[in-house]
Amino acid sequence: MAVGIGILGAGTVGGTLVRRLIDEGAVVADRTGLDLEVRRVAVRSLDKARSFALPEGILTDAAGDLIADPDIDLIVEVMGGTDPAGDLVLAALRAGKPVVTANKELIAARGPELIAAATEAGVPLLFEAAVGGGIPIIRPLSETLAGERITRVLGIVNGTTNFILTSMTEAGRDYAEALAEAQDLGYAEADPTADVSGADAAAKATILAGLAFGVWVGPSRVHTEGISGIATADLEFAAELGYTVKLLAVAERIGGGVSARVHPAMVPFAHPLASIRGATNAIFIEGPSVGELLFAGPGAGGEPTATAVLGDVIDAARELLSGSQVAPRIRVAPGDVVDFAEVATKWYVRLEVADRPGVLARIAAAFGTAGVSIKSVRQEGRGESATLLLVTHDAPEAHQRAAVGALRHLSVVREVAATIRVQSEER
Amino acid sequence: MAVGIGILGAGTVGGTLVRRLIDEGAVVADRTGLDLEVRRVAVRSLDKARSFALPEGILTDAAGDLIADPDIDLIVEVMGGTDPAGDLVLAALRAGKPVVTANKELIAARGPELIAAATEAGVPLLFEAAVGGGIPIIRPLSETLAGERITRVLGIVNGTTNFILTSMTEAGRDYAEALAEAQDLGYAEADPTADVSGADAAAKATILAGLAFGVWVGPSRVHTEGISGIATADLEFAAELGYTVKLLAVAERIGGGVSARVHPAMVPFAHPLASIRGATNAIFIEGPSVGELLFAGPGAGGEPTATAVLGDVIDAARELLSGSQVAPRIRVAPGDVVDFAEVATKWYVRLEVADRPGVLARIAAAFGTAGVSIKSVRQEGRGESATLLLVTHDAPEAHQRAAVGALRHLSVVREVAATIRVQSEER
Repeated sequence: MAVGIGILGAGTVGGTLVRRLIDEGAVVADRTGLDLEVRRVAVRSLDKARSFALPEGILTDAAGDLIADPDIDLIVEVMGGTDPAGDLVLAALRAGKPVVTANKELIAARGPELIAAATEAGVPLLFEAAVGGGIPIIRPLSETLAGERITRVLGIVNGTTNFILTSMTEAGRDYAEALAEAQDLGYAEADPTADVSGADAAAKATILAGLAFGVWVGPSRVHTEGISGIATADLEFAAELGYTVKLLAVAERIGGGVSARVHPAMVPFAHPLASIRGATNAIFIEGPSVGELLFAGPGAGGEPTATAVLGDVIDAARELLSGSQVAPRIRVAPGDVVDFAEVATKWYVRLEVADRPGVLARIAAAFGTAGVSIKSVRQEGRGESATLLLVTHDAPEAHQRAAVGALRHLSVVREVAATIRVQSEER
Repeated sequence: MAVGIGILGAGTVGGTLVRRLIDEGAVVADRTGLDLEVRRVAVRSLDKARSFALPEGILTDAAGDLIADPDIDLIVEVMGGTDPAGDLVLAALRAGKPVVTANKELIAARGPELIAAATEAGVPLLFEAAVGGGIPIIRPLSETLAGERITRVLGIVNGTTNFILTSMTEAGRDYAEALAEAQDLGYAEADPTADVSGADAAAKATILAGLAFGVWVGPSRVHTEGISGIATADLEFAAELGYTVKLLAVAERIGGGVSARVHPAMVPFAHPLASIRGATNAIFIEGPSVGELLFAGPGAGGEPTATAVLGDVIDAARELLSGSQVAPRIRVAPGDVVDFAEVATKWYVRLEVADRPGVLARIAAAFGTAGVSIKSVRQEGRGESATLLLVTHDAPEAHQRAAVGALRHLSVVREVAATIRVQSEER
């Protein structure tokens, strides 16, 4: 029996998916026994040139029609954004249609509501492609590791920013040059805000925390810092100190609560994440029994993402044909989110200081008063003005901020030129 | 509704699983909504001390009783070996009970038969723990990547041999010393044959090829070489040439057929597999759309393996409670297996030769006559006797063997001291 597929959106991922379903339908049927048939594809403009050819009448600009169409058994949402995607997905689930989506922004914003609707309707809502593009990560987290008490998920989940940071580190470019290069090569959008601000990674951090801990943090409670303030000089100093700077998404259990955050961090050379270059994504999952698991691969792009979507479509079609209401894999609930001010990290602090006796003592005193102890200090340059590179031990965010605030009032400190968090050596 | 679990075997993995089901049952219930209840555990000896405490009457030495017991809904097989595990698993499937197993030897030997029995009975047969221990690899291959035409799976799938090779490489130990160390530390068994001969990796290669390509190669048709012949000297020469020696399991499409093989190989330093140390496992999956995916983590051990088994138990219980017969995820069939003699690889060849003019010309001629071209030559030492390190270009196994056979008959060649395949630089 053929499964009728309706696809919302035919951009990079949607167009690739349509082509794959047409070109490789026989291969999929051979491997899985499923006959997947593209019955409607909803697009914004019917006039735009497409990379695929479909029979008359399949392309439509009336997305809502797909939900009501009795010939459509399963909805794939690859239009992106929260609106109108969210209401369409909700309507599809309420109509009893399984939904596969690649939309991290939507899942991050409305995940609990959509998961509840899927549970109530007894149909799958799958979103493997929402995090890590072609890397299988959602399914391992929510299925294979369902019996593991995961302690931390740590990853490079945005290829655009990793490409830019790699280019700044390896070619010595400044941020603006590296961004322009990424745009030229198609790794960054014309408006790169969602990527460089960390918002894209924050959406993924919410989803990872939800799957790993069952606690829905929500994007607004993810502490989020992007990469636009990173200076090439600090990447060079980081290298001298044995670190590479990466934009990390972190979801971890702290006490009885959960923290999710996105910020640039110095990663020790020996850590596997330090060697993840260019647009590649990599995610670590840590738990008391499995130890450390690493997943790496292409984090974006039409082809890898379409593979992840297709895997979900196959899975949803299998369940659909079984005629059963399989219990959902994912349960999420609001939970205790740890205030970021209480989260302890190490900091790298670059100071421009007067080079004279007693300076370090006054700086160390400022850290000490704030309850932050210093792990290492290194002076670059001598003379009228010197650069001090400090790395602290772990201390709560609030203490680190208080220390840096105090430094700004010291007469011997000309400038707090940069602060970047340092990922612990302990993996 | 509680799901009654019967466990066959209470060794390292089984004992850990029983403890986890008892200690973390509430956590699992909270996360998944499933009440998993250990109802019978079959062991060989009732008198042996156990790491877990069970109520009277749960431990039994009559494994067959679990299959017939109406209180047992789901069978976990962690006894290992093919006999009696195979007949017990088959009987359980025929009795309509889902089976979760960690037994790579059994799946490799009787996979198609067991998968067919599961399909016929409409119950799941899950074996995530059979390859890669705690690393989710079976599910990503058979589900997330079901829509990808995978071209190659390449991995370090045996932690014992990787531990031994790492120790030989980094501490300069010889094979016997490194094996003894691995045995002392519990990384190798008293009888290490299954690991060091490559048989364990060959079972996993069969399973990986079956899932990736739908073609069941079977362990007897996996070309298998172990590590006991590896000399420490060649690990040092490998490092000079920019390589690390690893025991690789390879499953790949070649033309219209499939090849599965296990052998030591020199891996370029820049390849991510080169940096996988100790007992860690790592698996690459390559396809035209997803590019390269890397999965790494603990490949063995009670705790990680029990996590993978538990994930399967949760999945099987979910399907069981849905009351449906969900179509199997895996379809395998006999297929065209490429004769290993036709598989092209590069070779590293270490020759002890007379150090006089014309020697290289005669050696190069022997390679040329066999249809093998030489990529690089390096001479170590001078004088009466010299060591030549040759690396060839890709050539079929049969040609490489013919070339080396011819070398053995040259008067200028004192000894063909070692041959090791070289993994292509192209990833």
